[in-house]
Amino acid sequence: MTAAAEFEAANKQYAATFDKGSLPLPPGRKVTVVTCMDARIDTGKSLGVAEGDAHVIRNAGGRASEALRSVIISQQLLGTQEVVVIHHTDCGMLTFSDEDIRNKIRDGLGENVDHLSFLPFKDLEQSVRDDVALLKKSPLVLDVPISGYIYDVSTGKIEPVN
Amino acid sequence: MTAAAEFEAANKQYAATFDKGSLPLPPGRKVTVVTCMDARIDTGKSLGVAEGDAHVIRNAGGRASEALRSVIISQQLLGTQEVVVIHHTDCGMLTFSDEDIRNKIRDGLGENVDHLSFLPFKDLEQSVRDDVALLKKSPLVLDVPISGYIYDVSTGKIEPVN
Repeated sequence: MTAAAEFEAANKQYAATFDKGSLPLPPGRKVTVVTCMDARIDTGKSLGVAEGDAHVIRNAGGRASEALRSVIISQQLLGTQEVVVIHHTDCGMLTFSDEDIRNKIRDGLGENVDHLSFLPFKDLEQSVRDDVALLKKSPLVLDVPISGYIYDVSTGKIEPVN
Repeated sequence: MTAAAEFEAANKQYAATFDKGSLPLPPGRKVTVVTCMDARIDTGKSLGVAEGDAHVIRNAGGRASEALRSVIISQQLLGTQEVVVIHHTDCGMLTFSDEDIRNKIRDGLGENVDHLSFLPFKDLEQSVRDDVALLKKSPLVLDVPISGYIYDVSTGKIEPVN
């Protein structure tokens, strides 16, 4: 059974009691979260974010450079006025280098991806500072509150990064 | 009060009863979801995805081209073997053109972003087909099940796109 089929089954239950059908398109709490795709992070539960509250941008590492297009759309077209960047402990991005994954793809798929950067990092706190700074410095991002956090996958806690 | 401060308060409650502290890094259900940042989508609740189950990649529109880096990392380093692409009704990406947002940024921020594409689309079903096809055709994506869905924000239901 595919995960897709399991999602369809679980979704039937969700839709059966669904009562959020008239929420507006712009996020009610006017905030955008940028975080990692990591399977252990449930942004709704861990941050108290309900349907309709917040834009949630997720990619490998929660990297702001890749999130920039979405942040711009969120602010320019949908009125968000705050960004929260959340990276996390035990992140896969701490475990490899661009050279490692390029070699793996060359060996496994026979493809040369030396032109691609996979945006890994070696220092978790610094990665949060870098990504907050990238957004703060961008002339394409509004001058709004932008904060950075680390989510601890072993405790479920977020801690601010200053 | 910032949303970040509200997240900190809500997170204290989440962490107080947190019991998922020993989940492994690779997603337990070996699947990656690619979907939109839209505030009305709660991937955990709407798909039955718990902490540890699935990689969740989200960006404006749920566009696969931008998700590609993360999908590659998910498959090459963390063992996922399925991708599910989910776009949704009433998506903001249906409401503007690249020209519209470029003009808005030029007028509002005084910045020329004619070199950026914001990846809007005009046909929702076709956008799902396009993004599934992009992943299926990519030599950097494994030959695994890749399916496409539309989430209806008015009913909470997902429907497959063939």
